[in-house]
Amino acid sequence: MSIHENPSQLVPDPRSRAKGRISLVGAGPGAVDLMTVRAIRCLGVADVVFYDRLVDPEALAFVRPGVACVFVGKEVGDHSWPQDRINAAIVAAALQGKQVVRLKSGDPSIFGRASEEITAARAQGIEVDIIPGVTAASAAAATLCEPLTSRGVTDRVVLATATCRPGDVPSDLADIARPGTTLVFYMAMQQLAGLTRQLVMAGVDPDQPVTIAANVARPNARALRTRLARMACDCAEAGLANPAVIILHLAKRTENPLRSGSAAAQAPVAAGDWDAG
Amino acid sequence: MSIHENPSQLVPDPRSRAKGRISLVGAGPGAVDLMTVRAIRCLGVADVVFYDRLVDPEALAFVRPGVACVFVGKEVGDHSWPQDRINAAIVAAALQGKQVVRLKSGDPSIFGRASEEITAARAQGIEVDIIPGVTAASAAAATLCEPLTSRGVTDRVVLATATCRPGDVPSDLADIARPGTTLVFYMAMQQLAGLTRQLVMAGVDPDQPVTIAANVARPNARALRTRLARMACDCAEAGLANPAVIILHLAKRTENPLRSGSAAAQAPVAAGDWDAG
Repeated sequence: MSIHENPSQLVPDPRSRAKGRISLVGAGPGAVDLMTVRAIRCLGVADVVFYDRLVDPEALAFVRPGVACVFVGKEVGDHSWPQDRINAAIVAAALQGKQVVRLKSGDPSIFGRASEEITAARAQGIEVDIIPGVTAASAAAATLCEPLTSRGVTDRVVLATATCRPGDVPSDLADIARPGTTLVFYMAMQQLAGLTRQLVMAGVDPDQPVTIAANVARPNARALRTRLARMACDCAEAGLANPAVIILHLAKRTENPLRSGSAAAQAPVAAGDWDAG
Repeated sequence: MSIHENPSQLVPDPRSRAKGRISLVGAGPGAVDLMTVRAIRCLGVADVVFYDRLVDPEALAFVRPGVACVFVGKEVGDHSWPQDRINAAIVAAALQGKQVVRLKSGDPSIFGRASEEITAARAQGIEVDIIPGVTAASAAAATLCEPLTSRGVTDRVVLATATCRPGDVPSDLADIARPGTTLVFYMAMQQLAGLTRQLVMAGVDPDQPVTIAANVARPNARALRTRLARMACDCAEAGLANPAVIILHLAKRTENPLRSGSAAAQAPVAAGDWDAG
């Protein structure tokens, strides 16, 4: 295992030029100023960049002139570049001796399919590293000014997805839909009715406040506050779709279990109330 | 609810000067180049900064000359400044018309006690916002090059803590210690024996691989790979303490449930094997 002691390691070492290197870089949730300095520096030394649909095109301004930026167009339900093709492309570029940046929205370690790219790289003996980014849950919490944890109310955060590998059995939500938990669902906008049904079966009050934050940290950001039972129809009516996160603050049990939202959500929440960005 | 449409909102509006503003800013996990550009810009317009022990002192280089940087010294188990005092100090400064930055390590929305500061600010009618940061779990995953999710192996991430409000009943780990889950514990190094006991009682194999990442993204970063049953004694022997995160990849059930680690942890893990940063 390697520990990056020094960010300067990311500046290509001439000795490793022969084989190249792959950096999986988190572009953060959307706005280019939510990228880290290290991510920006890494873009500045890239020989080629492969980027997703959700990456802010402004981020590519940090790439040196003449460097190819390849759009791999991955998005939920529309993989114009299947994962295997992405794996093959980044590995081929690194084998040519290039410093390859695989630019992913959010944090590469969270629902970013980074493991598959790491496995492909290592199979060819290519060095790979990860530059972390701000994940959508953190960005949504910041935009809403509603922290993911509130001492005494919620003391754990579950980042879950409704989009699994085809054929996989989805996780049982009864385990995680517990008082004291903030649930954040990624890539779940196409499964809202099923998600609602599962959460209610898991014991969550149909009146539980829910916030849907779409296009977080982008100019077209929108947030919808509603109740669990109305979530699917309210989102459809408002035209909200991926990319979005769905946030439920399941408060620790009080006299009226699961009826209260988080401390940060003390303001009354009207069903279907929403704000455009 | 407000959506930040434009980062330029963070540059103080002259009209709001009368009352000041509080920004809860994520400094990221340690290395100053893992801060976001927005966080750095926010430091550059601050009139006063209140910062935690875990914030890299280099971050304060972005503050304008002459601006007071107040060390509030909060750390696990040693609150030199109790939370109430921090709340009172940031509110008092904002009431003087100052642009207050409350600089927190990691992401302010995750175990950052941001809710208490937001409540205190709003009680005085002070505007407050959050600049998100890279949380320790993401930084540890990046440093270890082991993503928090691996398609088909782990499809949810639980961020939990072993440090709750005094008197609070700790969460039941049996709910969350499930196949298909990556568990990340924050601020748990003083409860390792209890945590091990709870996880084993929840059905986790005592041989489950565990990684402890301490001082992530700092020059003194260290990682320890071991097995659950040996975690407490190995950490004691290696002298590992907070700040650290404890990571367990509980793979989806295969023929031998809970026996395998994540795809990213395929390499054999020797008990007590560890690397210094």
